[in-house]
Formats: sequence, C-alpha cells, structure tokens
Amino acid sequence: SGKIRTNMEVLIERIMKLARDDPRRVVHSFKVALALTFVSLIYYVRPLYDGFGVAGIWAVLTVVVIFEFTVGGTLYKGLNRGIATFSAGGLGLGAIYIASHLGEAEPVFLGFMVFLLAAVSTFIRFFPHIKRRYDYGVLIFILTFSMVAVSGSRVEKIIELANQRLVTIIIGGAACMVVSIFLCPVWAGEDLHKLVALNMEKLANFLEGFGGEYFKLDEEESSGEAGVCSKDKLLFLNGYKSVLNSKASEESLANLAWWEPGHGRFRFSHPWKQYLETGGLIRQCACHIEALSGHLNTDIEVQSEFHKRIAEPCMKVCSESGKALKELASSLRAMKRPSSFSAHIQNCKAAIADLRAALEASSPDSANLVEMIPSIAVGSLLC
Amino acid sequence: SGKIRTNMEVLIERIMKLARDDPRRVVHSFKVALALTFVSLIYYVRPLYDGFGVAGIWAVLTVVVIFEFTVGGTLYKGLNRGIATFSAGGLGLGAIYIASHLGEAEPVFLGFMVFLLAAVSTFIRFFPHIKRRYDYGVLIFILTFSMVAVSGSRVEKIIELANQRLVTIIIGGAACMVVSIFLCPVWAGEDLHKLVALNMEKLANFLEGFGGEYFKLDEEESSGEAGVCSKDKLLFLNGYKSVLNSKASEESLANLAWWEPGHGRFRFSHPWKQYLETGGLIRQCACHIEALSGHLNTDIEVQSEFHKRIAEPCMKVCSESGKALKELASSLRAMKRPSSFSAHIQNCKAAIADLRAALEASSPDSANLVEMIPSIAVGSLLC
Repeated sequence: SGKIRTNMEVLIERIMKLARDDPRRVVHSFKVALALTFVSLIYYVRPLYDGFGVAGIWAVLTVVVIFEFTVGGTLYKGLNRGIATFSAGGLGLGAIYIASHLGEAEPVFLGFMVFLLAAVSTFIRFFPHIKRRYDYGVLIFILTFSMVAVSGSRVEKIIELANQRLVTIIIGGAACMVVSIFLCPVWAGEDLHKLVALNMEKLANFLEGFGGEYFKLDEEESSGEAGVCSKDKLLFLNGYKSVLNSKASEESLANLAWWEPGHGRFRFSHPWKQYLETGGLIRQCACHIEALSGHLNTDIEVQSEFHKRIAEPCMKVCSESGKALKELASSLRAMKRPSSFSAHIQNCKAAIADLRAALEASSPDSANLVEMIPSIAVGSLLC
Repeated sequence: SGKIRTNMEVLIERIMKLARDDPRRVVHSFKVALALTFVSLIYYVRPLYDGFGVAGIWAVLTVVVIFEFTVGGTLYKGLNRGIATFSAGGLGLGAIYIASHLGEAEPVFLGFMVFLLAAVSTFIRFFPHIKRRYDYGVLIFILTFSMVAVSGSRVEKIIELANQRLVTIIIGGAACMVVSIFLCPVWAGEDLHKLVALNMEKLANFLEGFGGEYFKLDEEESSGEAGVCSKDKLLFLNGYKSVLNSKASEESLANLAWWEPGHGRFRFSHPWKQYLETGGLIRQCACHIEALSGHLNTDIEVQSEFHKRIAEPCMKVCSESGKALKELASSLRAMKRPSSFSAHIQNCKAAIADLRAALEASSPDSANLVEMIPSIAVGSLLC
C-alpha cells in the first residue's frame, strides 16, 4: 500500500507539473469535453433523423477529430474536412449515377474509380505545399468518395444520407470552431510570436552569462561558491540548446497561424513567414553559441597574460550583444521599434575594435580564445 | 493554349521529380489504392450485414485512416485503433447498461460520462510518452466511447452493431497491415538507419571539401574556373545544412521503428535509441561545421605567410577526419566494425599536433584560422 501510495504521488506530481507548465492544457481538455458533450446530447435527446443516432455518430466523430489545441489547428481541420466532404460527396454521387446506368459493369466501374482516385490523391499528398496546408483535406476526400461509392447504388437514399451527414458535420464543425475561438482561444500565431522572442532571450541570456563564466578572473576565487556558479551555468546552457531544435515547432505553428483570422495585435495577413526567417537566423546564431559553449568545459590551467588582456573587451562584446538581443526581443514582444538598440550595437562594435587591437598586440599561445570573434560578429550581425 | 501547355509541362515536371526523388511514393500510392479497392469491393459485392453498406463504410474508413507510408506507421495506427476501439466499446456498453437502469437520469449520466472521459483523455494526450506512442489510440478511445454513448440505449442492438463494427475494423486493419508488410514494405527503421549514415557522409563531404576550398592556395589562379568551384561549394554547403534540422524526422522515424517487427538485418529489439544519440552528436558536429563554413564567404585579401604555413596541416586534419567519418558511415551502413578507422584518427591526431606546432611558432595576425582546431577536434572526437 505504501508503494502504491508513492506511485500515486509520483503520478499526481507529474499531472500537476504538466498542468502548471501550461495551464491552457487543462482549459483545452474542458473545451473538448464541453463541445463533445453538447453535440452528443443534442443528438441523444432529440435524434434528428432516424432515431438510431447514426447521424449523431458523425457529429461526434467530427468534434473528436477536428478539435485541436490551437485555433489555427481547429480551423485547418474543420475547413479542410468540410470542403473535402462536400466536393468528394458530389463527385461520389456523380460516379454512382453513372454507375447505375452501366448494369453489370457497375462494381467494376466503381472499383476502378476508387482505385484511381485513391492512388492519385495519395500521391498528391507527397507535394510539400499540399502536405503543409491540405493534407487532411485530401485524406478526407479519399475517405468520403470511397464511402459514398461503397454505400450502394440507390441514388435517392444516398442523397438523403449525404445531406444528413453534411448537416451533422457542419453542426459538429461549427461547435468546435465556436468553442475554440470564443472560449479562452489558443492562437498559434501568438505562440509563434512568443516562441521567437523567447528564443532570442535565451541566446541573450547565454551571451550575458558566458563572459562572466569564461573569464571568471578572480571573482570565483574570492567567493568560492563553485556550486552555485555551475548550476547557473547549466541553466543558461540548456536554454540555448532548445533553440537549436525549434525549427519543426516554428514551422508547424506558422502553418497553423496562416489559418487564423485577425485577432488583437495580429492582423489577417500578418507576415508569419518572416518569423520563420528570423527563427532561422536565431538558430544560426545558436549554432555559433554551441561552438562557443564547447570552451566552457575545458579547464584553463594557466590564466595567461593574454587571457587577462582580452578578457575586458570580450566580456564587453558578450554583454553588449546580449543586451542588444534582449532589447530586440522585448521590442518584438511589444511590437515596437527598438529604442536603445543601435547604442548597444555601437558599443559592441567599439568593443570588437578593442578586441582586435588587443589581439594584434599579443602573442598567440592562447589562440583558442580568438575564435570568439566570429561568433560575436554573428551575434552583432544578426541584430 | 501555349500558356496552359507550359503550365502542364511544369506540373508534369514536378510530378516526375517527386516520383524520381523517391520511387516508393508511387508504389505507396498504388498500395493504398489496392487495399482500399479490395475492401470496398468485398463490401460492395457482398454486403455482410444490412445490405446498405454501413459496415462497409467502417472498413473503408479504417483503411484510409490507418494506411501510412511506413510499416511502423501502419502498425502504430492499426494496433492503437484496434485496442482503443475494443476497450472503449466495452466501456461504452457498460455505461449504457448502467444508464438503462437509471430511468429519467439516463441522458444526464451518459452526458456526464462523455464529459469526464473526454476531458481526462484529452489531458492524457499531453503526456510526452503517451503522445509519442499512444496518441492515436487515446483519440480513438474518446471517439468510440462517445459514439457508443450517442448510439442510444437499446443494448442488444448495440452489441450487434459493436460486434459488426469490430469485425469490419479488423478486416480493414488486416488488409492494410498485410499489404504494408508484404508488398514492397517501407521500413521506418531502415530509413532511420540510412538517414544517420547519410548525415555522417554529408559532414564528411563538407570536411573533405572545406580544406581545398578554404586554402585554395594557387590552384584557383592556375585553373581560373571560379564558377565551377563555387557551384561545388554550394553543393556541399547545402548538404550539411539539412543535417542541422534532422532531429524531428529522426525522432519520428525512431518512434515508428519501435512498432516494427524484426526484419532482415534488424532484429526485434534493435537499439533505435542509439541512433538518436548518434544523430545528436552528428548535429553537434554540424553546428561546428556551420561555424567553420562562415569563414568560406569572407574574402582573404592577403594570403599571409601564416595562412600558407598552416594550410598543409589544416587540410590534412580536414581530409583525415572526413575520411574517418566516411569510414564510419560505410561501416554503419554495412553493420560491420570499421577497419581503417583508427588509422585515420591517428593521422588526424598527428596533423593536429603539426597544426599546434605551426601555430605556436607563428605570428597571430591571421588568428581567424585558428578556430578550426576545436571544430576538427570535435570531428575526431565524434568518431
């Protein structure tokens, strides 16, 4: 019993962490439950068509499959599903109408049509542009066409069925979209906006921390708190590492943001693509930082004369480029032009000039350090 | 008409490219069409239950939704769908049985159950482990439970319906799995294996090319073919860039590979996780290469004495670490121990020692170059 209790505590702890990390997850769960219960009860209490809830089944299916975490995701799936169902349904009815005049050849014709459309549609899904924006729609297109073709040949009954199914899908889809947009909406575009700003801040944190960490001239010896220092180090190290792998999430957010209507500070044709470009530059910068961070782990036995001489300009470059990035991030967050940005860049450039001067007037034994120049140049270039 | 013709030509060109890049896409399209036509015709020609093909609809739906490009993807979706449908169906029948004894409170009870299960299941999908392996199963679980609950209260009829649906889903799923595994299978594990080896080779290509490109001492002047050179450069530059963003595809392939049975050289419990670790190291290496490649674009006005002095050891380090990586990649491909690998590493280490000696005996004016050391050290470390 003690062990079960511990396991339960671990589980509860994990659930709490998941909810604390992003409380919108809890809200999302209740939103899905609400939409689903609403649609189920409509169809349970007052079966619209044949009393056995076949139509209700499609509304429920639509809600479960369409409702995504972000508004963009819900709109993407909902609109794709609606349009694909409608067009494939029409095409399917046409095929059945033709087939009904063919007599014996009916199943052959329908089978051939299903085969052809399935093969073509499946191949179309490999086009990168289609995959990005209409993948789900093409899937539903094959699905609906095949389902109509299988449903048999009595056209009148099928038109009734198609009509009924379309209505239920519209009801299910509308319920999802209304709940998704008007009840604590989660905008993919806003998430992308925040992600890019956050990534900039992570790099800035690293740059601001790196100088002090690498050139810990004598502060360390005086304070002696190595433990605290390495814990801080770990914190900002992990920070920039997540930036390196942010491409996939940025791209999916940008794709979903494309579907979202204008809201708040984001107008309809917000330039989402530019976030991707900025994200790419940030990742390039993170790559250089990765190369820099490799030098944090190497022990420097002797603090050479050279090391001390370049310390000041190097730390200056780090902190100024860090500040410039932070400024840029906060101006992105606020959607305003940065104010003190060019001052930081000026300082940074001056520090780089100092560093160059220091390098030219020194011996090459601690040549390792020199490689900070390109990374920092990239840092200032990016800004 | 001329314009339409040009557009058609462009489209055909793009289709041909898509097919040429990976011919398995064409095969996959025909596989899906085959499975779908097979299942449709079974149900069209001999409707198993009620003559109106409702059961057939579920078989078709299962095939369209389950059939994925890789065997692992098809098994993941098929097994998740099967188990989830079975368990949620049972639970739903239980709920309906209880509800049927509650009289007036029946819809309230069922609505509450749907709400509760939908909220809990949606939240569970946020757990990283569940998301990776059972996301689709949980989705189908909510779907099936809600559908059963909506279907009404007459238990005998529902048991018949559930039974019939389970059989159709099994038939659809089995058709998918058989076609997927036995007809030109696409194994996710094999793709992962090849991707990791290919990424290694891309880095090796860069390293082998970089030395010659950067230290193009006088060959360029003698040949004068700058155009050819920069085209080659572009080729290997683009090569390593795709490595930087390979994390997402490696992870999804590894997740799918987990579902695949043993086949060929891959046994059942093949250590897929180690591919992810190797992939991470390769990306780290690619990051250092990204930093290196930044130096290709800077024009060197003066070919200093120093530049020429370190050229030879640097080029040696590059080519030897490149060869070592190639050796490693081809041994991974063949799943054999590398043979001449340690020789390359020895050469590489010797070249690094030479480089250090050259550095220690030189003036620091072209200090830029020095930063090759850490990247190359990483290259040799990785091996």
